[in-house]
Amino acid sequence: MNDLEAPRTLRLLVEYDGSRFVGWERQRNGLGIQEVLEQAFSSILGEYVSADGSGRTDAGVHALGQVVSVRSQKDIAPGKLVLALNAVLPPDVSVKEISIAADGFHARFSARSKTYRYSILNSRARSPLMRDRAYHFPRALDVGAMARAASCLVGTHDFSAFAKESEEKNCVRTIFRAEVIRSGDLVVFEVCGSGFLYNMVRILTGTLLEIGVGRRAPESMAELVMGSARADSGFTVSPLGLTLVHVGYPEDCALDPDRADA
Amino acid sequence: MNDLEAPRTLRLLVEYDGSRFVGWERQRNGLGIQEVLEQAFSSILGEYVSADGSGRTDAGVHALGQVVSVRSQKDIAPGKLVLALNAVLPPDVSVKEISIAADGFHARFSARSKTYRYSILNSRARSPLMRDRAYHFPRALDVGAMARAASCLVGTHDFSAFAKESEEKNCVRTIFRAEVIRSGDLVVFEVCGSGFLYNMVRILTGTLLEIGVGRRAPESMAELVMGSARADSGFTVSPLGLTLVHVGYPEDCALDPDRADA
Repeated sequence: MNDLEAPRTLRLLVEYDGSRFVGWERQRNGLGIQEVLEQAFSSILGEYVSADGSGRTDAGVHALGQVVSVRSQKDIAPGKLVLALNAVLPPDVSVKEISIAADGFHARFSARSKTYRYSILNSRARSPLMRDRAYHFPRALDVGAMARAASCLVGTHDFSAFAKESEEKNCVRTIFRAEVIRSGDLVVFEVCGSGFLYNMVRILTGTLLEIGVGRRAPESMAELVMGSARADSGFTVSPLGLTLVHVGYPEDCALDPDRADA
Repeated sequence: MNDLEAPRTLRLLVEYDGSRFVGWERQRNGLGIQEVLEQAFSSILGEYVSADGSGRTDAGVHALGQVVSVRSQKDIAPGKLVLALNAVLPPDVSVKEISIAADGFHARFSARSKTYRYSILNSRARSPLMRDRAYHFPRALDVGAMARAASCLVGTHDFSAFAKESEEKNCVRTIFRAEVIRSGDLVVFEVCGSGFLYNMVRILTGTLLEIGVGRRAPESMAELVMGSARADSGFTVSPLGLTLVHVGYPEDCALDPDRADA
């Protein structure tokens, strides 16, 4: 494989089952998806690259549409690189697409929106076929109340009450869309925003569940997003129900299903 | 827990992820779901029972709606038994419901129809989140041709070409419904019939895939179900895409979504 005159930026769409990983980021206490992907690049291209994700996902969190940027000097057709990477990647990580990005594209710094989906299995018995994909919550849920509470999230707010780390300085984020929908036994919370704090979607979901069982009023959500403390919000649900569905970039506006950053 | 005067028949609805099992049936070379369920009963009720499934599922095949009958002499409310069993069953097996069945009910002998679903992921890249639930087939598929071929299955035919074991004597089965539907990257073959031969749905799916890529004509399916030999039909696809969705019984006619046995 020949080298190009100058490195170019590749944009990867990556899916993973987060169950056995410590999260997206390379870490000392276990395997991160970032490390797995960088190793696949080095074994195929003989080139050390840095795989920059749109953001870290927590241990156990899945991705259908994580976006990753990589600077590479190797001259290989993107379609061939997809096949070569998937041949060496483990079964729980896969590259869905690769395209050549504009100079200056960076998966994290260029991102304008992220869409997360949290799946709740609301049935009496647990489901073996969904056990690592949805959080089992057997109590009856008022999905209408949860949806009303979710709608209070839309806008620019101070999400201090939904941040794990107290050292997080700026907790202001903008939420473009927040919905709770039931489909059979599955209750899905889908949220699209400019960015999310550490554990934010999981604490939002825990708070929505407390609203769903009547322990909190739906309207209380509007107060929580005005800079309340972590102690005022709900519990942190399991990471296994959470999936990073989509990352939006300005260059995709015409294609972006969320379009919120347009 | 008290003993009843006479044993009664319990009817269980069971879901499992078949990935790590040798199949439904108790076997010497590995763990069967039947054995796991019988052990759960004996650890809770202190009673040895025989768990009779509606039929065996192959190694790796999943079930959303396997029906199991158990004769038990213990006096315990079905709802409590569901909770107790799920507390001791492994994460990949779960009892969804238990009801008290009419005397003489037997999950296998009373069954009138079974519905299987085979899921094919028809995308270029494989999917980590569906890796044990759908068979990855990257080549373009003519789903219309597959659907026409599937419609030839409906009726009473000789399925010798779709049986693994040549010693199977009577290969005549009745198919009530057979559909192939695309939903995004997923192509699903759903078939409801009076019963199925060993490996039958997997060989039917392999044959449908060969029709989907143009290697066979859709109309050839009509000839294959007139007693052709195994060598005339297609390949056997992986068990991991197959799920037993529903078992129909005469007593459920009003509730049975398939109603084919009504």
